[in-house]
Amino acid sequence: MQHRNGDLDVVFHPKSIAVVGASSNTRKSGAKWVLGLKAAGYTGAIYPVSSSGGTIDGLDIFTSLSAIPNDVEYVIASIPAHSVLQLLDDCISKGVRVVQFFTAGFSETGSTEGTLLERGMLERAQRADLRIIGPNCIGSFCPEHGIPLGPSPLGKTGMPGQVSFVSQSGGIAAKLVEYGIGRQIRFSKGISVGNSIDLDASDFLDYFADDETTRCIGAYLEGSRDGQKLFSSLKHACTSKPTVVWKGGRTRAGAAAAASHTGSLASSAPVWSAMLRQAGAIEARDLEELSDCLLLLQQLGRFRAKSVTIVGGLADGGGGISVAGSDACNDNGLAVPPLQAATREHLLDLIGEVGSILMNPVDVSPAQFRGLESLFEAIRVVALDGSSDLLIVQEDVDIMHSFLGVEETRKVNAFLATLPHETGRPLVIVLPSGSAEPDRIEIESDLLEAGIPVFPSMMRAARSIALVGLHPAGHDSVSLQ
Amino acid sequence: MQHRNGDLDVVFHPKSIAVVGASSNTRKSGAKWVLGLKAAGYTGAIYPVSSSGGTIDGLDIFTSLSAIPNDVEYVIASIPAHSVLQLLDDCISKGVRVVQFFTAGFSETGSTEGTLLERGMLERAQRADLRIIGPNCIGSFCPEHGIPLGPSPLGKTGMPGQVSFVSQSGGIAAKLVEYGIGRQIRFSKGISVGNSIDLDASDFLDYFADDETTRCIGAYLEGSRDGQKLFSSLKHACTSKPTVVWKGGRTRAGAAAAASHTGSLASSAPVWSAMLRQAGAIEARDLEELSDCLLLLQQLGRFRAKSVTIVGGLADGGGGISVAGSDACNDNGLAVPPLQAATREHLLDLIGEVGSILMNPVDVSPAQFRGLESLFEAIRVVALDGSSDLLIVQEDVDIMHSFLGVEETRKVNAFLATLPHETGRPLVIVLPSGSAEPDRIEIESDLLEAGIPVFPSMMRAARSIALVGLHPAGHDSVSLQ
Repeated sequence: MQHRNGDLDVVFHPKSIAVVGASSNTRKSGAKWVLGLKAAGYTGAIYPVSSSGGTIDGLDIFTSLSAIPNDVEYVIASIPAHSVLQLLDDCISKGVRVVQFFTAGFSETGSTEGTLLERGMLERAQRADLRIIGPNCIGSFCPEHGIPLGPSPLGKTGMPGQVSFVSQSGGIAAKLVEYGIGRQIRFSKGISVGNSIDLDASDFLDYFADDETTRCIGAYLEGSRDGQKLFSSLKHACTSKPTVVWKGGRTRAGAAAAASHTGSLASSAPVWSAMLRQAGAIEARDLEELSDCLLLLQQLGRFRAKSVTIVGGLADGGGGISVAGSDACNDNGLAVPPLQAATREHLLDLIGEVGSILMNPVDVSPAQFRGLESLFEAIRVVALDGSSDLLIVQEDVDIMHSFLGVEETRKVNAFLATLPHETGRPLVIVLPSGSAEPDRIEIESDLLEAGIPVFPSMMRAARSIALVGLHPAGHDSVSLQ
Repeated sequence: MQHRNGDLDVVFHPKSIAVVGASSNTRKSGAKWVLGLKAAGYTGAIYPVSSSGGTIDGLDIFTSLSAIPNDVEYVIASIPAHSVLQLLDDCISKGVRVVQFFTAGFSETGSTEGTLLERGMLERAQRADLRIIGPNCIGSFCPEHGIPLGPSPLGKTGMPGQVSFVSQSGGIAAKLVEYGIGRQIRFSKGISVGNSIDLDASDFLDYFADDETTRCIGAYLEGSRDGQKLFSSLKHACTSKPTVVWKGGRTRAGAAAAASHTGSLASSAPVWSAMLRQAGAIEARDLEELSDCLLLLQQLGRFRAKSVTIVGGLADGGGGISVAGSDACNDNGLAVPPLQAATREHLLDLIGEVGSILMNPVDVSPAQFRGLESLFEAIRVVALDGSSDLLIVQEDVDIMHSFLGVEETRKVNAFLATLPHETGRPLVIVLPSGSAEPDRIEIESDLLEAGIPVFPSMMRAARSIALVGLHPAGHDSVSLQ
């Protein structure tokens, strides 16, 4: 199938959307989709369609697609499987450009009927100029355009941004968005492709590669019907933008579950890893790694980092954190080189010798006994030392509350928020949870807003810095079985 | 040195504590220790001691240890290094049984003076019947007895319980407690041993092994001056109670930091791993794994689990979660065996075939379209299937809010809280963070209170279930270099 990616603009910026299967029963998915579009602030025309008629949240429900007096560019279908062929005919008559099917019960069930029905859908759509997303998917997501992901009346989208994603699982896509909203990952576009009988992950990778507002790409993939096409699209995407791929179903149990889920025939994990490496993708192992890498790329852009400087312990007890931080970084292939001699001498003046760890990691905690300004100066001096590629600071809000108090903890974070700008040094903050969650969450939010990537553990930080910062360029060819 | 562990009761249950170096300046550590003991509800006598005299929070400050009119069992010393020998003399005169030194600046600095001073301290204490904890440590922790960990005026201890720990790092110990409080890990006793010139990790492992209120043991270790003694104590501990050990400084950078931190001469990581395995310890790699295992042991006791059943998706979109959960479990060596045929047939009745994953993992989400009772019945049927050792349920509060609403999400959690009791089946819940943190935290708290272990990700759950559940018994001998 040829690429017609210019056409895909309509998936994220349709002027009008009909939700077919949206009755006035707001417990059903169709109605929830309508409510979600309204809640998310979609400004195009919304047309609920259900044979039952009636109204939903002030909108008239049309009894059929043909009954809508205006053009319809995009259709969200939440209907039984036995109605899909009729709906496709209606879409073609109406001049609809893209239809996404929430409807499940096709090839993923393993039944012959389901597979035949998919074939019939595709043949019908291909005869006209109609494109299909799904079935068995939650389709399009575009915060800037007020399109939330999936049938939720809350219509949460988070702030619009520059991270785009494609997912073969609606559940993973939905959780990526929810988790992303919590961590201020700001999305440009997202797509859940489900069984992808027509438009598939490759098509959207191509689209995101060329999309001007997309700066980095995430993908959750379970399998592919056309390995060469996927490799070619991934390579194109990775050449244009950093692209993070989480392959689900890489173990025996996972592959078995994937077969029931999206009907994917799984290749072996090593074949996939080789393909991703050669395409130039960053490979993540789970949702946490995928979103950690996307957060890092959003906040810092693409970067190279082979070595880090670690500041452990802003209040008391930075020794163990320094050891643990070093282990986490070395575990992930990141070097922890010593600071320059001049920096260490400067630190010795500021901190003194007693119980100090001043090589890298740096336990700056003794400086706070001389007042916050000494602590800030010590951190500044470490930040300005050029012997590594990136600075990691761990702070434990609960322990800082104990040793510094709430007010001084705030001041420390106000200082940290300006540190990258002041020193020109990329900064990553590790902010583990503990016994002061409401305060910690507020601090995390402020630091994220200041453009700093924040991670819940040293291991998570080190892992994603290594995945992004040690990542080599892509290679030339691969053969995916 | 002979073991006199009966003597160590006084470390956790002293009738009286003098804090030497506690002036009326509440910004200093000594004063903070006094305030912390009061805040934590310590009911024994507290005697602040500082040459400056005065009062602190209504307590008279004694100008010397000898000026205290009553017996003093335990001393917390927060004084300069040059005063430690004099204080030891004072402690011996006063008949003090144990003194812990917050004071740092000894062998961990690498200086000859520091090492000689430590030797002098030990000689002096050994001539009398005085025991030393530290120096360079935050000493004893015992929630039941109102002894908080370290110099914090907040005196947080959390609820008393049955988890005890020993740590060579005060910072790690403090964070373990804070993180533990946040996750309802209830501690019996804890000890930060620092440079451990007299009482060391081995002594406390021996003590916890025989301690009646301790049911499981955690340890953060960086090194040992007597490998055979440590091995013997670890083996004794592991034979008595499940014991989880996190070895800090297992990488080159980590070992270098550990040398500056507690003056530990590191052995290689493989030697340590072999030693821990032979002693019968569970080996954790970071604070998260250590506390995950302790939480699991607290909530479920010691258990064997080679296989799990996974329920993914309580609202919508359980397919990807099922795949990811299978990968996480297989990655960690846990099997995901199919449910019994009769169970699958029962589920098919309850859920129907459309898009269902009913082998194991089980995507029960379609059941909710038939009402909450169907969802509960589907989960109950899966729980009662005996084909695996343990049940894991992932729930995403933000997604459940979208699909079920806040009220029904509460009902689902009330049901889950009673499920282990109702079915006799051990249950672990995965409750990832996202866009509904206040509600998620409340649900986590309720589930923890119901005795259910809760983890932030499938990978963390699978990892700790594997560490505890696949753990073999200990072996006979080892030689630690």
